[in-house]
Amino acid sequence: MIKIILDCYGGDHGPQACIDGAIAALEAIADLHLILSGDGDELRKLLEDKKYDKSRIEILHAPQVIGCDERPTDVIRLKRESSMIKGIRLLRDDDSVAAMVSTGSTGALVAAALTRIGRLRGVIRPAFCPILPTVDGGIVGVCDSGANVEITPEHLRQFAIMASLYMENVYGVQKPRVALLNVGKEAEKGDELRQTAYKLLSETSELNFVGNMESRDLLSGNYDVVVCDGFSGNVLIKATEGTAMELLKKLKKDIYSSWVYKLGAAIMAKMFKQEKAFFNYQNYGGSVLLGTSKVVVKGHGSSKAVAVLKCIEQAYRMQTSELNPKMEEIICKYDHYED
Amino acid sequence: MIKIILDCYGGDHGPQACIDGAIAALEAIADLHLILSGDGDELRKLLEDKKYDKSRIEILHAPQVIGCDERPTDVIRLKRESSMIKGIRLLRDDDSVAAMVSTGSTGALVAAALTRIGRLRGVIRPAFCPILPTVDGGIVGVCDSGANVEITPEHLRQFAIMASLYMENVYGVQKPRVALLNVGKEAEKGDELRQTAYKLLSETSELNFVGNMESRDLLSGNYDVVVCDGFSGNVLIKATEGTAMELLKKLKKDIYSSWVYKLGAAIMAKMFKQEKAFFNYQNYGGSVLLGTSKVVVKGHGSSKAVAVLKCIEQAYRMQTSELNPKMEEIICKYDHYED
Repeated sequence: MIKIILDCYGGDHGPQACIDGAIAALEAIADLHLILSGDGDELRKLLEDKKYDKSRIEILHAPQVIGCDERPTDVIRLKRESSMIKGIRLLRDDDSVAAMVSTGSTGALVAAALTRIGRLRGVIRPAFCPILPTVDGGIVGVCDSGANVEITPEHLRQFAIMASLYMENVYGVQKPRVALLNVGKEAEKGDELRQTAYKLLSETSELNFVGNMESRDLLSGNYDVVVCDGFSGNVLIKATEGTAMELLKKLKKDIYSSWVYKLGAAIMAKMFKQEKAFFNYQNYGGSVLLGTSKVVVKGHGSSKAVAVLKCIEQAYRMQTSELNPKMEEIICKYDHYED
Repeated sequence: MIKIILDCYGGDHGPQACIDGAIAALEAIADLHLILSGDGDELRKLLEDKKYDKSRIEILHAPQVIGCDERPTDVIRLKRESSMIKGIRLLRDDDSVAAMVSTGSTGALVAAALTRIGRLRGVIRPAFCPILPTVDGGIVGVCDSGANVEITPEHLRQFAIMASLYMENVYGVQKPRVALLNVGKEAEKGDELRQTAYKLLSETSELNFVGNMESRDLLSGNYDVVVCDGFSGNVLIKATEGTAMELLKKLKKDIYSSWVYKLGAAIMAKMFKQEKAFFNYQNYGGSVLLGTSKVVVKGHGSSKAVAVLKCIEQAYRMQTSELNPKMEEIICKYDHYED
């Protein structure tokens, strides 16, 4: 049995989406055991009329609620009985628990994971690695997408090693093509950080480093992993997702402006539905946190049941593929300055 | 007469696109005079069978060619007789010449503008400000988009002042809504640079600062100007343009996969054409360089005639709206550290 904690509070759709995702996950994965963290009474009520194997779900009663605007440090200090912090503490203390999934505050989750769970040996800083779809039907991982805004070239090498192993072990991508996000393709482009990182990445034999990538090529299918600082990574994924969403919304609006277009769109309804699903991040799971000594997956705040299911699947596969020991092994090969 | 130099070499479509754009510009703007910089014989040949007022075009013979991979410093030093450098020198030396438009190497153009033309009084660093369309039919300017990768909060304030005046004077946007690109909306988000910049922007009474913007909202129509460092600005605009292009390409491919979809698309042909035009940067001109003491507009390397025309129009309006003196006036109000 693989035991995973699901933090059922903090997401926009409340515990209902988490419960539905949890039950779908139990159906999808035979050796999964879930610990639902949150208000015990409410969770039990929501589970009442559901069909599931009762021996595979337990409840971790956590009555405190985290507000939207609470500072991460305050959450850790003052909300020890919240679903997130109580979950993280159980993850730390119970060797039989493998992972935690949360759709709550990103800042609080990173802070809690860092201070309560800690890093893998050798890892300077854990980093987020969300997945986006590419136009050729594949996927691409972007690491880091927001956990670290101030970094060094060595951070970028570690992001590359971790994300590359993640794509290989969790998604079966062979020899992931790793690129460095930069303002141009040539090796000498960008600031000193990028120029030094380019050299470091080229020298790392465990990586299939293919050079710099400009942000316009993210969805091209030519790359499996893109490494970047958390600020520009955040800009990259939100611009990509945002543009796709705005464009689809605009298409919809334009279609509704004319009955002729509505007719055309009716004929193409199935296709438009597929396009929408293609760009719907709900279908690609969460943003895993790579480099913590136990598996932590951050689901999008707006995760519905399907996204929660995907997050649990990600956590499960990270654990069963033994990703963490593999990361540790390669990262410890390279010297670096501890922060 | 407003005299503008057009560097006819360095773009992907060669001098033909520039000549066509130049002639269209002469038709569109009555008091425009153009100086075409480049190989005199070739330019005269290309002009031979065109209809235009010969008194309004002159040729600046510049025989040297700049290679794709040449370093900006080498271009300035070794390519003094190239269309770009000879043009920049004429812009510097001739008081009757107002502006220059070039589709050549960005790095070389920035370096040449900085060393040969110089900055407006008080300006620490000139910055690029390309324009993108928004889904509500408006436009948004992004400043800086690549000229400066290492910056301070004071740079960001200057970018905001310059871009705000640009949007107001060249595009007639009243009280442009200025946002700071950041990883979240709250004032305390991002690194020290963003946090300090947020305060500075809030304190600048000449600005209509509306807070932080996440990259996903660039096309929303809620902002007129977005300020950012050149690295993340570059990531932002290329991710936005790239995603729109990839998505439209994907739509096209999916449409061609089925005769039913082809039928639907045929009905919607006009709409798809409009969507394509909407996201075609050729229709939005170039990336103006704000803060140089004379007007410099950088056209996209792949500019066709229509984009060249738009670039000339931008340069013309920057000059006739007296943008530069207005910028200088406000920027000089604020103390800063000269670099």
